[in-house]
Formats: sequence, structure tokens, C-alpha cells
Amino acid sequence: MVSVSFRKLAVFGVGLIGGSFALALKRAGIVGKVAGIGRSRSNLERALELGVIDEAADQAGVALKGADLVLVAVPVRQMDAVFAAIAPHLEPDAALTDGGSTKRDVIGAAQSALAGKIGRFVPAHPIAGGELSGVEAAGAELYRGRTVVVTPLAQTDPQARAAVDAAWRACGARVVEMSAQHHDEVLGAVSHLPHALAFAMVQMIADRPNASELFGFAGAGFRDFTRIASSSPEMWRDICLANRDVLLAELQAYRAELGSLAQLLEDADGDALERTFASARAARNAWLAERK
Amino acid sequence: MVSVSFRKLAVFGVGLIGGSFALALKRAGIVGKVAGIGRSRSNLERALELGVIDEAADQAGVALKGADLVLVAVPVRQMDAVFAAIAPHLEPDAALTDGGSTKRDVIGAAQSALAGKIGRFVPAHPIAGGELSGVEAAGAELYRGRTVVVTPLAQTDPQARAAVDAAWRACGARVVEMSAQHHDEVLGAVSHLPHALAFAMVQMIADRPNASELFGFAGAGFRDFTRIASSSPEMWRDICLANRDVLLAELQAYRAELGSLAQLLEDADGDALERTFASARAARNAWLAERK
Repeated sequence: MVSVSFRKLAVFGVGLIGGSFALALKRAGIVGKVAGIGRSRSNLERALELGVIDEAADQAGVALKGADLVLVAVPVRQMDAVFAAIAPHLEPDAALTDGGSTKRDVIGAAQSALAGKIGRFVPAHPIAGGELSGVEAAGAELYRGRTVVVTPLAQTDPQARAAVDAAWRACGARVVEMSAQHHDEVLGAVSHLPHALAFAMVQMIADRPNASELFGFAGAGFRDFTRIASSSPEMWRDICLANRDVLLAELQAYRAELGSLAQLLEDADGDALERTFASARAARNAWLAERK
Repeated sequence: MVSVSFRKLAVFGVGLIGGSFALALKRAGIVGKVAGIGRSRSNLERALELGVIDEAADQAGVALKGADLVLVAVPVRQMDAVFAAIAPHLEPDAALTDGGSTKRDVIGAAQSALAGKIGRFVPAHPIAGGELSGVEAAGAELYRGRTVVVTPLAQTDPQARAAVDAAWRACGARVVEMSAQHHDEVLGAVSHLPHALAFAMVQMIADRPNASELFGFAGAGFRDFTRIASSSPEMWRDICLANRDVLLAELQAYRAELGSLAQLLEDADGDALERTFASARAARNAWLAERK
């Protein structure tokens, strides 16, 4: 394990992702000071009260002054504005990372805004979180045992990369590298698609004339199936738009999968239905066993 | 609360549903003895060891001898054979209920097999369970606070109905009445459809050439979204076939819902996406708040 420490961390967007990163680095004892900056003054006040940040800044230059580690953890469609605010004030030795769930768009935003400083940026996506959002939900253990995907560019400075990897590892995460395109495809399939499906399921029920009766008979299966439909609408709007091409292809593939299932039902093909369900169960259970 | 007690309970199919019913009535102290009968001798031995049943029968006549309460808790497509085995031996004062997740087909099976004894049958569906199955997963608390839907027939004997209601209430459940048709429509929307969707999601990923990589990046959202895809393939094959017409209609409605969502993505209509997600989240959170 590389020994690493940071003078000052600046967090843009002190919510679940940003707040948990700050708390984890504090817990690891490798950060001198944490500055937070964000849209909501009351959220920053709460972050101060909770000890997530040590100072609340209202200007990017103030937050970035002396910061050698910077995390941008805002909804992905706000990244371009935040990078533009960061660009003039980023310290030469600062390593910059983000917590965005999509990577091609965030990289595009960073390239436009950071220009010559792009080498300091190490795009990252911590696969952690949940349907809760905001600094109240943040915790030092959020990233423990989780995976952080980094999608570096050809220009990424190796020293910035090493610093960012070390920071995420200090949070307890495993760091994996892939291309931004591949990241967006993989996460489109196993994360963005299920979120879209869960939102659609709840919305379909909610739109029915007998919605309240239907919800009244929904059980624990429905609860868990739709847990991710309690996620932040703004965050998921941004992810869906940012990864639109992949998500559209996944929705089409999934609708085709449902078409095949409907055909088995039309044919009353019990053997094939049972084989499909058994195969899905076996795959999921094998995944669960490996995951623990 | 009606005071009620039973000399002997006979359980056909001592799994999660049947075993939990036996344990709950034992815990309530309102059953003298429990006989179990099922396809697997080793499962019955285990049920004996766990104290879920007091005797393991290998013939319906033995299990039913002296039983004034009978629960059939086998996969729904086996109900017809079990009712046929029960019919000649059902005690005149016995109340018969079931735990099937679909009701029109179970009623059809009961009507054919029970003939003149149909009045003793009170069709029921306890909305409880989970992805675990088998007697090992049974527990006296499974039905606490849950809903049991009963779908009585015109011929249902009021005394049998009262006994069955009292038994389910003694398990801690709330009893609600509706027609079998309406039951199957409601549960088709909020239970059978999500199960089919979860199986299809896992199967689609499992069928891909890079399945193991995709599973490697699936997180807690995917885990909860697909929890019900670890359910019993045999049980769900039966439910899907039994409620085929409703499930086909729901699959079609859901595919149309996904089509609308895809259109919003095609149009890059961020406002409408956010409104949809926010509306779904609000509906789900309101449901959760009411549920607790």
C-alpha cells in the first residue's frame, strides 16, 4: 500500500458520494483539511455540523486554494459548469477526480473546461451509493469493499493517477481501470437499465385508476424490486441523458427479452419457462456467492 | 377476536408457506397436532426434526384422519392432484384452505376434485414469502402484519370461512376478501409481473458473452432489483402459466411503458424524464410510508 496524505481536499457537491469520500479520508487520517462547496448553503451548514467538511466555501477559488485533492460529486450534467469554475484555480499539484456514474460525458466536459490542465484529471466512478441522497446519508464506510472504476485519458498524469488511486483505496475500495466507452456500456447494462426499469414499473402502477389498491397488495418483492426507484430524479435524468445511446440499446434488448418471455407464455411452454427461471436463478446465486 | 382452536392441522407441502403456517398456529397455541405430507421424504424428516410437524404421513387418508384444518401449500399446478387425493378423505367438519399465489386456477382444480365438498374450501393467498423456499426457511413470524387475500365461492360454507379466517388471523395476518378474478389481476400487476421482469433481467445479462464481467460490476441496486429472480423456478413457472392471460397483458403494458420512456430518451426530453422519475419516487415513498 502506497503511503499517501493530502494537505487539503476540496469537495464540489457535498452529498452522499462527496460526503462519504471526505469522511473516509478523514477516518483514514490522510487529509489535513476538507473544504466543501455546493449549491445549497443549508446543506453545507449541515455538512459542517456533521464534521464532514471543515470549511464551507462559496467560491471555487477559495475551496481550491491549497487543495491537492479535488473531488467533483455533482449530478453529471452539472459537471461542465463545475469544471469551468475549477479550471482557473486548480493548484498545479492538485489531483482532480469525480464521482460521476457516466464517464464519456464527464470526460468531454473536463476536456473542454480544463484544457491544458486535463492531465490532472482522473475520471472515476465509485460503484456505491443507494437510493438515499444528501450529506445526511454520507458515511465513512460507503466505499469499503466496493469497486471504483477509473477511466484515465492518454494525457492523464501518472502522479495524479497514483494520488487518486491511493485516495480511493484509502476509502476501502478496489480500483479497476477501463475505457470510458466500455465503462458506460457495462454500467448501462447492470445499473442504468435496472434503474430505468424500476422507475417505469412504479410509474405504470401509479398511473392506474386503482393505484392505491394495487400498492396495497404490493409485498416485499415489489419493495426490493423498486428500491432504486426512490433514487434522485435529477441524478438519474442526467445519467440517462448522458448515456442515452447505450441505454436506448439496452431498453431495446430488454424489450426483446420480454418479447421472448411473452412468446413462451403464449405457447404455454412450461418446460422452457422453468428452464429460463432456473438458469436466471442459478446465475444470480452464483454471482451472489462470488460477491460475498 | 374469535377464540378458535383446532384438533389437528394437515399440511400438504411442508415448505416455506406450509411450514410457517404450522409454526404460527403452534406458537398461537391453537392446534393440537400437525401432520405433514409431501413429495420429499427427506423434507418431511427435516420438518419433524425442526418441530414444524408432529407426524409425517405418506398417504392423504392418514394425514387427514381427524384433521379439522387442512392447508394445501404446493406449487399451483400440483393442486389438482392434491385435491383429488384429499377429496375422499376430508373430514366433514374440516375447513380446507390453500396458499396458492393464483386463485382462478386453484378454484377450478378444487371444483373438479372436491365436487360436493367444495363448500369446505376457502381459497386463500398469503402475501408473504420470499426468494427462500423449503421448510428450513419457515418461521412462526412469516405472516405477522402481512395480508391474506381470501376469494370465497358462492358455495363456501360460512363456518369453514370463519375457521380459515381465524387461523390466518392467529398467524398475525390481516384477512381481505376479493373475487378470484380481481385477485389474479391485482397480483399479476404488483407481483407476477415484477418476478417475470427480474428473471428476464438476470437472464439477459447471463446470456451475454461478457456475462461474468457484467456481473462483476453489478452493485447493490442490481442485487435488490433481482432478488426475486432467486425464487423457485417451479413455483414461478406454475404461477405464470396459471395467470397467463393477465401476465401477458401486463407484459404488453410494461413494454409500452418502456416504449414511452425510450421515446423521452430519443427526444432527450430531460424535463419529462425528471418528472417521470420524480413522480415514481414520490409514489413509491408514499407507499412505503403507509406500509410501515
